[in-house]
Amino acid sequence: MTRFALKGQICYSERLDKITVMENSYLLCEDGICCGVEENLPEGWENAEVKDYGNRLIIPGLVDLHMHAPQYGFCGMGMDMELLEWLDHQVFPEEARYKDLDYAEKGYSIFAENLKKGATTRACIFSSLHVPATELLMEKLEATGLKVMVGKVNMDRNSPDILREESPEASEAATRQWLADIAGRFKRVQPVLTPRFIPSCTDELMERLSRLQKETGLPVQSHLSENLGEIAWVKELCPWSECYGDAYDHFGMFGGEGCSTIMAHCVYSGEQEQELMKERGVWIAHCPTSNADLSSGIAPVRTFLDKGLKVGLGTDVSGGSSDSVFRVMASAIQMSKMYWRLADETKKPLTLEEAFYMATKGGGSFFGKVGSFEPGYELDAVVLDDSALKTPMQLTLRQRLERIVYLSDDRQIFAKFVAGEAV
Amino acid sequence: MTRFALKGQICYSERLDKITVMENSYLLCEDGICCGVEENLPEGWENAEVKDYGNRLIIPGLVDLHMHAPQYGFCGMGMDMELLEWLDHQVFPEEARYKDLDYAEKGYSIFAENLKKGATTRACIFSSLHVPATELLMEKLEATGLKVMVGKVNMDRNSPDILREESPEASEAATRQWLADIAGRFKRVQPVLTPRFIPSCTDELMERLSRLQKETGLPVQSHLSENLGEIAWVKELCPWSECYGDAYDHFGMFGGEGCSTIMAHCVYSGEQEQELMKERGVWIAHCPTSNADLSSGIAPVRTFLDKGLKVGLGTDVSGGSSDSVFRVMASAIQMSKMYWRLADETKKPLTLEEAFYMATKGGGSFFGKVGSFEPGYELDAVVLDDSALKTPMQLTLRQRLERIVYLSDDRQIFAKFVAGEAV
Repeated sequence: MTRFALKGQICYSERLDKITVMENSYLLCEDGICCGVEENLPEGWENAEVKDYGNRLIIPGLVDLHMHAPQYGFCGMGMDMELLEWLDHQVFPEEARYKDLDYAEKGYSIFAENLKKGATTRACIFSSLHVPATELLMEKLEATGLKVMVGKVNMDRNSPDILREESPEASEAATRQWLADIAGRFKRVQPVLTPRFIPSCTDELMERLSRLQKETGLPVQSHLSENLGEIAWVKELCPWSECYGDAYDHFGMFGGEGCSTIMAHCVYSGEQEQELMKERGVWIAHCPTSNADLSSGIAPVRTFLDKGLKVGLGTDVSGGSSDSVFRVMASAIQMSKMYWRLADETKKPLTLEEAFYMATKGGGSFFGKVGSFEPGYELDAVVLDDSALKTPMQLTLRQRLERIVYLSDDRQIFAKFVAGEAV
Repeated sequence: MTRFALKGQICYSERLDKITVMENSYLLCEDGICCGVEENLPEGWENAEVKDYGNRLIIPGLVDLHMHAPQYGFCGMGMDMELLEWLDHQVFPEEARYKDLDYAEKGYSIFAENLKKGATTRACIFSSLHVPATELLMEKLEATGLKVMVGKVNMDRNSPDILREESPEASEAATRQWLADIAGRFKRVQPVLTPRFIPSCTDELMERLSRLQKETGLPVQSHLSENLGEIAWVKELCPWSECYGDAYDHFGMFGGEGCSTIMAHCVYSGEQEQELMKERGVWIAHCPTSNADLSSGIAPVRTFLDKGLKVGLGTDVSGGSSDSVFRVMASAIQMSKMYWRLADETKKPLTLEEAFYMATKGGGSFFGKVGSFEPGYELDAVVLDDSALKTPMQLTLRQRLERIVYLSDDRQIFAKFVAGEAV
């Protein structure tokens, strides 16, 4: 049994409307699991190692519920298109290059290195459709020490030959090959089934993936109701569907017992879709930076929260122009203000508390007990040194946290722990 | 006569819809003035010093048309209030501390140091109402080598005792004292008349400032139509005004011959106000980050540009949560997409080209021939090293510039020149 404590200025979320603040306190860890936060070292912990971070902040690691690793090369680029045009012109040609393992080696080295540098400790990541490159990505991520989920993408229609699987059978076979290849290979990196989105997947492919999901119990990630053009297209492709979410649900790939599912975006999810997500326990990956950069719109997050839906944050690298979940927290707050101002004045803007919750405990719940410092949670922690963010003012801990959300970059990351291990 | 050339990958704006891109070219400077960009060193320049920046980008220095130096200490903090509440709770108490020169020394050292580190070469800056601290700020900014305008703030109503001048006479006298004190003292830092905004200035103060303006020919900076509550208040205070802009115009403090004027925000400037700005040649400081952070709204920038109004960008530190004009460029593009999406689908989102123009030549025109590399412009240049923004892709120069706008921080600033001098 290994025990240690991190000492410093501790902030974490237990619930949506409050940031728990503990000054000069001890974050206790036993065998990778958090044993709570105490003002003094409790009895029995006298011999535990104490890492004293002084005046630095300690917060739960951030959770990024939606990223595309092979798009990282054009992060912050091509931001003058809407979704469908952008897929054709920017995304598909670049993702196709990941057929080449040498190219993947270059791209994924950069991706993994930068993910490690930031405040993210957990992420749900789309790879491309290529099995060898996906396995390479998993190896590189395993080496970072982060705990992430990676999905080989399934797509067998509506994309150019260079980036389309030739049949539902071939897509399923590649997926099974991938799962067989990686079985037992990784300690920290897990697979997630990843049908790209309805327009990329034939009905037969969805049926096959659904059977595979039931067989394996693997989680699922995909996209939902991001863009008006996309939604109209889904309606054409699945005229029988009552809403976009229903097109996934029809194939049993939309949450429910034994099928943990993340749906990214949900910008235009209406009441029916929201109810379905609630019923099925679907996680929403809210990606406000991406939704601005791709001109998609602003998701009704206040409504999601009021209804008790599960919401985490996603950078959506590279629909979103930043790989920083801190930036996405700021963007979520800013965009919720614009939603309040321009779309619906009854929907109060998000608070710092809510954004912090979504970035930690909200998204973390997809990984189990992750994203908080309550006892029993896996201990993911980020130690932040804000001394370079100078001010003449005396700040409270909450104020320091707010400044970090808006102003920090990777220079403020002083140390990082994932499930109790320093990375 | 001193001549030198900067060699590198050069991007600049001549007009709104195009970024002029010159690879491996020479930016020519003679006595601080740009002599254009050439692919080869022209005849007569054989003996000029050439600083070769290799594959690095060279762009015009960025222009920040709106900042508040004494608010810098709470940059990225208190972002859960609207304008008027935020002024009372966050701004006024902190600005009042700049009565204390020791405190101002701390705060303005940080401000000047960080402004120097970034990509900004020109800025229009509000100080507080305090004359000694304003002079201290000007000294610190002079030492940075940047060329900026600084305004001692005038405010004689509707703020707490700790931050209000006791009468219009006292406000005018303090302003005259300030102008006398600094006469001839600075080479790069210039004064600008700065009535805070209509709610802070009695009619008599406005009349006195207007006389002073006519006497001195000094430029003017203030705030306009930022927030709905503010606009309603102005209408109460100046029931005779036809629009908020008219309240300034009534006192001769709204542009026109011999009165260069910047108005920050203009989120709710309607047709009449726009026409008045056009007639008077008023510069608009568009501050999209601030307008999101303070829940103000989204300014109709597309309309401003279509009408040929003069538009530059402002960080509005610290209504805006970042001191980076690059971040404001990204925000301007993102918010224009949300305006298109949520407010008016006939108003096309801003392009990178337009944001770049506003951040350089658009705002620069307030300083004269500034913000471009066309011959005759003062040579403000920023050399950018994007090698740490890794990608496996081969990028065009425009793509590299776009990534810098979205992803860079002060680590990418490799060198900076203001009016031909390295800073």
